[in-house]
Amino acid sequence: MKRSVFYVSDRTGITAEMLGQSLITQFEALKFRRHTMPFVDNPERARNAIAAINLAAKTDGQRPIVFSTLIDQSMRQMLRTADALVLDFFEIFIAPLESELGTPSSHAVGKSHSTGDLHTYTQRINAINFCMAHDDGVNSKGLDEAEIILIGVSRSGKTPTSLYLAMQFGIKAANYPLIPEDLDKQQLPSALHPWRKKLWGLSIRPERLHQIRSERRPDSRYASLSNCRHEIQAAEAMMRTHGIPFLESTNMSIEELSTTILHQTGLVRHLY
Amino acid sequence: MKRSVFYVSDRTGITAEMLGQSLITQFEALKFRRHTMPFVDNPERARNAIAAINLAAKTDGQRPIVFSTLIDQSMRQMLRTADALVLDFFEIFIAPLESELGTPSSHAVGKSHSTGDLHTYTQRINAINFCMAHDDGVNSKGLDEAEIILIGVSRSGKTPTSLYLAMQFGIKAANYPLIPEDLDKQQLPSALHPWRKKLWGLSIRPERLHQIRSERRPDSRYASLSNCRHEIQAAEAMMRTHGIPFLESTNMSIEELSTTILHQTGLVRHLY
Repeated sequence: MKRSVFYVSDRTGITAEMLGQSLITQFEALKFRRHTMPFVDNPERARNAIAAINLAAKTDGQRPIVFSTLIDQSMRQMLRTADALVLDFFEIFIAPLESELGTPSSHAVGKSHSTGDLHTYTQRINAINFCMAHDDGVNSKGLDEAEIILIGVSRSGKTPTSLYLAMQFGIKAANYPLIPEDLDKQQLPSALHPWRKKLWGLSIRPERLHQIRSERRPDSRYASLSNCRHEIQAAEAMMRTHGIPFLESTNMSIEELSTTILHQTGLVRHLY
Repeated sequence: MKRSVFYVSDRTGITAEMLGQSLITQFEALKFRRHTMPFVDNPERARNAIAAINLAAKTDGQRPIVFSTLIDQSMRQMLRTADALVLDFFEIFIAPLESELGTPSSHAVGKSHSTGDLHTYTQRINAINFCMAHDDGVNSKGLDEAEIILIGVSRSGKTPTSLYLAMQFGIKAANYPLIPEDLDKQQLPSALHPWRKKLWGLSIRPERLHQIRSERRPDSRYASLSNCRHEIQAAEAMMRTHGIPFLESTNMSIEELSTTILHQTGLVRHLY
């Protein structure tokens, strides 16, 4: 029987989800049914959330787990009456922080994931737009503005990683493909010559690349295991020759790739 | 004097950051200097982290705040010896969960933000690729596959919101611009006619749009306040006529826009 998990928040629910996800994945043998309840920002919505939680308790025959990031005190008290294990993020952490910092917290709703200051927000949007405009080598003008340029063969994970660097850290990340012609000549694309120090490579295991490309173009030469092997081998050889650091993306998520790159390059993030 | 805040993690640090950010933003009057220490996955790195924390304590003349998502018990114990308020995420939450679930946790490092199962990961990447291929109306083929199509005038926030929907929830989100010709005729772009039920609008306050567009093309007709007013008025009128719901993006972050859309449309997310 799956246990129900509720993420209850007065705003987006993203913090509650991340909190809860990182904990419930520690119980690998168990299955959970997850529900996010965002925008629980008035007593009526709190009552509805509690009704849903109590219904799940009845249906499941076991108490749900509730991760709450509600800030309003009266709604937090209401939530505690639900037939569930309620883990109240705010209650647990805010008291030690208030005591350490010697000042009461503002109890203001929706501070994280809000637009914040205009400058920071603009940096984020500009980084995303830069990334879109410099995806897959479509535009080699403006690469002087790039803070990093990811290179790799088709489907090695360049696009999602660039986008995450832009979205999460406000970094202007371009990406540029290594195509068979470059690989055969063992030469970096000429557009990249001036920016060698900004290059960072992504590689991937040939078997995985074959799998990914086969979804897109089944039974093509492009997707064949032998071609994938050949491209990867040539790309890695080239990156080694030119002293370009690279990561193997096979078992890494977008988040892991992006944070590893940030950490290893020492790039300065523009957002927190 | 700024207080130092450290986010210490054995993996990406993203959970620790999000957790800490949502708490320290509750102390609006205070300023913090933030440091993320990801990949603290062996005792040597733990010692380095502690040294950095202790140094900050000395330099700042006050104890840093440490948000830790370390899972390994011996490293968590080491961290507790630092001259800081250490908020140990794992310690606080895992015990009540183990007791409620009646089973020990796996203490496995790096479960959240990892690649997870191949199917889910592929859905995420496919959604991102779909979004890139259907940005700004570049491609009206394949819109039948879109789960949602965001519409709005240039710079109303369509691209970042679509990308976030894809990245965070695995939703195939396209976006399509409303250009002056459509607005003057008060007609939906013809490519969108078959997909009226998938449309969701973004609007924005004219003053803000003027500000955003001026950064891009200062002193242009495109960016002028009067033109922004005219476009927004026409776009909102059109969306009302066609019964297309829309959000005003002015004071909303990408996260807030995306979660609101998810919540209000009832779209099914493919990722947690």
